[in-house]
Amino acid sequence: MKVLVPKKSLAETLARVERIVPSRSSNPGLSLLRIDVSEDGMELSGSNMDVDIRARFAADSPGRGSYAVLGHVFSQVVRALPSDDVELEFAEDELQLRSGGFATKLQLMAPGSAPVLNFATEFSGALDAPRFARGLAAVKYAAAVADFQAVFRGVKLELADGRTRTVATDGFRLAYFDIAESSGLQADIIVPARSVEELLRVLDEGEVKLALEPGQLSVQHGNYALNLKLMEGTFPDYERVIPKNFPVSITLGSTRLAEAVARVALMADKTTNNRVDLFIKDGELQITAEGSFGRSQEAIPVIQEGTDSEIGLAYNSKYLVDAVAPVNGDVRLSFSGTNSAPSVITDLGDPSYLAMVVPLRTA
Amino acid sequence: MKVLVPKKSLAETLARVERIVPSRSSNPGLSLLRIDVSEDGMELSGSNMDVDIRARFAADSPGRGSYAVLGHVFSQVVRALPSDDVELEFAEDELQLRSGGFATKLQLMAPGSAPVLNFATEFSGALDAPRFARGLAAVKYAAAVADFQAVFRGVKLELADGRTRTVATDGFRLAYFDIAESSGLQADIIVPARSVEELLRVLDEGEVKLALEPGQLSVQHGNYALNLKLMEGTFPDYERVIPKNFPVSITLGSTRLAEAVARVALMADKTTNNRVDLFIKDGELQITAEGSFGRSQEAIPVIQEGTDSEIGLAYNSKYLVDAVAPVNGDVRLSFSGTNSAPSVITDLGDPSYLAMVVPLRTA
Repeated sequence: MKVLVPKKSLAETLARVERIVPSRSSNPGLSLLRIDVSEDGMELSGSNMDVDIRARFAADSPGRGSYAVLGHVFSQVVRALPSDDVELEFAEDELQLRSGGFATKLQLMAPGSAPVLNFATEFSGALDAPRFARGLAAVKYAAAVADFQAVFRGVKLELADGRTRTVATDGFRLAYFDIAESSGLQADIIVPARSVEELLRVLDEGEVKLALEPGQLSVQHGNYALNLKLMEGTFPDYERVIPKNFPVSITLGSTRLAEAVARVALMADKTTNNRVDLFIKDGELQITAEGSFGRSQEAIPVIQEGTDSEIGLAYNSKYLVDAVAPVNGDVRLSFSGTNSAPSVITDLGDPSYLAMVVPLRTA
Repeated sequence: MKVLVPKKSLAETLARVERIVPSRSSNPGLSLLRIDVSEDGMELSGSNMDVDIRARFAADSPGRGSYAVLGHVFSQVVRALPSDDVELEFAEDELQLRSGGFATKLQLMAPGSAPVLNFATEFSGALDAPRFARGLAAVKYAAAVADFQAVFRGVKLELADGRTRTVATDGFRLAYFDIAESSGLQADIIVPARSVEELLRVLDEGEVKLALEPGQLSVQHGNYALNLKLMEGTFPDYERVIPKNFPVSITLGSTRLAEAVARVALMADKTTNNRVDLFIKDGELQITAEGSFGRSQEAIPVIQEGTDSEIGLAYNSKYLVDAVAPVNGDVRLSFSGTNSAPSVITDLGDPSYLAMVVPLRTA
């Protein structure tokens, strides 16, 4: 059977699917990409156990068939094809790709060797894709990378009536983002932060359809369908640790703050958690850092509010920079007290976002 | 003493010098960057033992002084400076940098702790910088990376009357480039390929001044001065192995050939030296490769010349792609015989360049 596809659709779709399908795995079936051809077009699907993905695109095909091929080999060849059009000829155990003067024969496996994936067909939930993407992208930095309790490596989705909230925390910092929209679903679920990364690559304009199934969130968007395996465990009761009273708060440009912290922090030693010190007095923020190579400081005028006239705190500079990054325009830093009392970072132009950072103990 | 410099000149110059000065070294003096300030401007200098570099740029200075500072720390701080202008205040054992609201203090060392470098002041040779750069860039790929006799890791410069030739070979392939210009020097010298890389980063428009001193080539170009340590040893007598008679030769677009070889070679196994087979017959070049994942082929129409009507040879695809890369426009491949008889690659539009590749033994 001969199928004709534009190289562009095939290559772009493969680039997304290839990220999920592992090029090496102790389970050899996982390295396989399943190809389903029908009169309507082509479907590519694969899985890394945490994320299943299926992508559809138009193709000129005379019939139906299901095949499996080594994902990373197929992707490499497709990327290098010389012409704008590709002919895929599927035979018993061989796939021949032709493009311009180039031809290649790849070994085909039985479609049953690839993982069996089931994608939802009915969706009781939906969200605006760009807003959902913004909510996920704004908080994922706060999830733990490793060496933590499993739930800390996930992003919690609070799917409630009239509100959808994304939350992540590693115990030292926290971020949440409120999407002022009902998904139509009601549940609290935790998605691994790595799966969130893959979902974000697929989200584009338009609507995302959502379905909750036992142990997974199913997502359909444009030509893509994904199943995201959920994490088990109890997410910490984070709201009660977010302080409400702030003796001092300051407002300044978010880029100005992030750049200054990163610049001053160059002098900080890694052995001290990249410590930078913030000192606020008389409408001026003084940022300092000291290490074995020298000492840096930078002063920035800020709008200062609150009951106390000055405050000084130390932070892991990376945590501050990460927490400020999702803020466009002006950022407000609110200090709940001295030493390790948490500080809160909000976006002056968008109340949806809140981040909390626990200062370093300096005593 | 306070010195004023534009951030741009300082940062751009440092980016070049920083590459040479090692950030870690068993000899701690090598990590130091020497700073010489005078009424004329600033000089930064450093060395990695193979290459000494000195860069000059204009600065507003009230006097003279010599200092040393940790190169990588100074560079990191300069790159991050917030304003277009920098004030450097040199004190006894401390350098204070100020830019915008930012200030940093770095520890200064005695200038004598940095390596003592001597740069040539008289130059008896010269070359056009872009042509010298082209000659070096066209051949450096053919030098060995490691595990070979030392001279194979160098680029030979044949500085002769009326001709300057660059040559590199790793024993399996060779490339030379004739710069149709006298340098004014007469000598055969070998420069480590890594030092050639650093020289290439500095070469720009205009003239390069050259001086030969015992064990080193001194180069002055624009604001930069470099000393390149020379390699000892005897470069192989390569000219006698370049074949002169070719039963078959073909001509085709260099990009077309390089892309096709790279594409077909995706199927080649690394254990077979990325083997691709070239077969020429009736004005058509057929490129094939086979490996554990499948088989690829591509046919390209070529202009075929010579006494034999067909020829077939196998190559390491990487060697072919490298050898063709310096050719703009059409490339000629000339085959001296079957099996491991060397093939010669020339640029149809520029006789300065010649490459030789030894085919893989297939018997």
